[in-house]
Amino acid sequence: MPETAVATRTLVEKLTAARAASLALATATADVKNAALEAIAAAIGRNSRQIIDANELDLANGRDNSLSIGMQDRLRLDEGRLESLSQAVRLVAALVDPVGENVRGQTLPNGLQLTEVRVPFGVVGVIYEARPNVTVDIASLALKSGNAVVLRGGSAAENTNRVLVSVIQEAIVLAGLPADSVQTIDEFGRDGARELMQARGLVDVLIPRGSASLINTVVTESKVPVIETGAGVVHVFLDESADERWSIDIVENSKVQRPSVCNALETLLVHEAAAERLLPPVLAKLRASGVAIHADDRARSIFADSVPATEEDWTTEYMSLDVSVRVVPNLDEAIDHIRRYSTHHTESIITNDLGNAERFLAEVDSAVVMVNASTRFTDGGEFGFGAEVGISTQKLHARGPMGLSELTSTKWIVRGSGQVRQ
Amino acid sequence: MPETAVATRTLVEKLTAARAASLALATATADVKNAALEAIAAAIGRNSRQIIDANELDLANGRDNSLSIGMQDRLRLDEGRLESLSQAVRLVAALVDPVGENVRGQTLPNGLQLTEVRVPFGVVGVIYEARPNVTVDIASLALKSGNAVVLRGGSAAENTNRVLVSVIQEAIVLAGLPADSVQTIDEFGRDGARELMQARGLVDVLIPRGSASLINTVVTESKVPVIETGAGVVHVFLDESADERWSIDIVENSKVQRPSVCNALETLLVHEAAAERLLPPVLAKLRASGVAIHADDRARSIFADSVPATEEDWTTEYMSLDVSVRVVPNLDEAIDHIRRYSTHHTESIITNDLGNAERFLAEVDSAVVMVNASTRFTDGGEFGFGAEVGISTQKLHARGPMGLSELTSTKWIVRGSGQVRQ
Repeated sequence: MPETAVATRTLVEKLTAARAASLALATATADVKNAALEAIAAAIGRNSRQIIDANELDLANGRDNSLSIGMQDRLRLDEGRLESLSQAVRLVAALVDPVGENVRGQTLPNGLQLTEVRVPFGVVGVIYEARPNVTVDIASLALKSGNAVVLRGGSAAENTNRVLVSVIQEAIVLAGLPADSVQTIDEFGRDGARELMQARGLVDVLIPRGSASLINTVVTESKVPVIETGAGVVHVFLDESADERWSIDIVENSKVQRPSVCNALETLLVHEAAAERLLPPVLAKLRASGVAIHADDRARSIFADSVPATEEDWTTEYMSLDVSVRVVPNLDEAIDHIRRYSTHHTESIITNDLGNAERFLAEVDSAVVMVNASTRFTDGGEFGFGAEVGISTQKLHARGPMGLSELTSTKWIVRGSGQVRQ
Repeated sequence: MPETAVATRTLVEKLTAARAASLALATATADVKNAALEAIAAAIGRNSRQIIDANELDLANGRDNSLSIGMQDRLRLDEGRLESLSQAVRLVAALVDPVGENVRGQTLPNGLQLTEVRVPFGVVGVIYEARPNVTVDIASLALKSGNAVVLRGGSAAENTNRVLVSVIQEAIVLAGLPADSVQTIDEFGRDGARELMQARGLVDVLIPRGSASLINTVVTESKVPVIETGAGVVHVFLDESADERWSIDIVENSKVQRPSVCNALETLLVHEAAAERLLPPVLAKLRASGVAIHADDRARSIFADSVPATEEDWTTEYMSLDVSVRVVPNLDEAIDHIRRYSTHHTESIITNDLGNAERFLAEVDSAVVMVNASTRFTDGGEFGFGAEVGISTQKLHARGPMGLSELTSTKWIVRGSGQVRQ
């Protein structure tokens, strides 16, 4: 690999090379793209020693820099995780190619044939934290959707990502696609991320994945169009008629199954007429799972094994075994609370009242609104997309779990026979 | 009308009121929204004298401020134009309501029922130039799609817009919708536009319409997600096999029918093997229509009645009776020229070669790519959308002519019966 040559490129040169690669990718057949993905999956297996060595270097640096245990875990790659990664790449290969899909079309009265077809964005930039599995996931989703991708991973994973991108590049070149289809710009550090956000015309869309502060920085500073994948201050509302069993199970599953992810429950709202009936069993179950309860006065008067909730609790995405609990007088107040504090990710109502269910679905303005289901279902895999780029909490372009088609744009094809406008 | 009360509101108060109005609009039925549109159409007719008086004040100010004749024309409203505006509002009322449309959905193996439904954005901001017809068009499209709208029109139309918005507000209140559904923020001047661009959380999407510099300012400065409606450096390529009659008619129509709009032709490319055959009749026809020809050396050697083209000509959206002309050796060079200079709006190839037609459609990355048709067809009305918000030249969310559905987002509805994630 000509690593020295690559390292001497400027960021703009890399982005220009990505643009050139995107032209080949845009017209690559699904067969060629799938062959490249199979090659990547095989190459990850073949080069596992080299990848793990680089990862161990990052982990050692992480320990020296007091990286948290959680962060170290997300950074770590081992044979088992690499095998899962290869498997994930093969799953992406098995998905239907979104490029070329006819979205809509018609023949106009004057004979013009109009077709809106799905096309790749071109060059996608992704800024994310020190999770090397994201490097492989995003690279395969971008390739499958015909996009060149420019990756800026967390600096704590820099060695791992450099090796992973080398392995990916070798593999896709074997399959006949340009090496520049997948590039990392980690070597430019924070300046690279900043420059990426200014690269209008070279980068078509920028996707930040990670902490709320990372996403907020990209959203407010980027001059390139952004798809915001967002934080989740997620709510469950136990309505007056909520089934006790469902309430216990859904709240437990929403909060405890994987508290560190964005679709986990943060705030439990309960109708005052159901508080005495539901809070004791629901909260007892959470306590038994080690969840700390931050409750308002009404809830504390019913369930004493809790701490007082502060205003800050309502706005906090804990990402930990903590939950805030509030008793509300009615559905309206529940919806008002959600409007005020939600990040518009996922909210669920537990109810047997049809009218209240429909009002909740209609009036709560979040990417995913649910009746009688766990908030943990907001996920590309669960939705049947096969793979997930992230979960969009913005309203432009994509909302909720983003699969392959959310990595595409469209263009209009017009076929005529000499028509002019009257 | 409580004009004084309105005038004392701050911009943030107005945006907050728009947000509150958007909640009512989001769940308003099509019947109610259509009644509001009919009321607007009627109110424009009923108040035509008041509107025209305000418009005459703006026109007088425009003359004092040396507003160009073209700008004065776009600013002018008379009885006939008001009647057309009312008619356009009734046409929007006749369109299908996009809100509530099921985009896709499925029942998952665990019984969860997923539906992606179309919902309004919420609050849409529009920044545009001194064209009062845009005020009415955008207000009706926003209402029909369930959005509250905040309008910042050109200051030269401030009196007209103030009266128009008053008339619209009175009408929609009669129909039972909040007055704050449609608001102008013209009274805040340039500061208002700047504040609007910073209003994340209060405004869901911002649409700039107008000059390239206006659009560029909004795109680079806005922290609110933007849909870019773009400038058009539009190309027609006459391939070696182009039909002479089609070439003459399509180039004439693309350039001359309405030179001041974004889908008008700016640069004509011609295959060198067809230049001697096609340039004389095609350019003679343009000259007869008063078009000034800016030609490269090869084209000038064939058609002398022209001025030399400069590098700047290739990047210029003339919006006037000017065209730049270049002879290219082949299709590849035509595509390269378009890649380099196009604003990715509309490009058309005139050809009888099937392979070249398909390559042009596949490799030219513009919102609309055409074979053997006039570029003037890139238009929401022509595409059968009934009405047009603008033409998007970005790749995120909407591309090409934007109709009602492009003013919407979606949300996912999940209906369960106690499901939790395994």
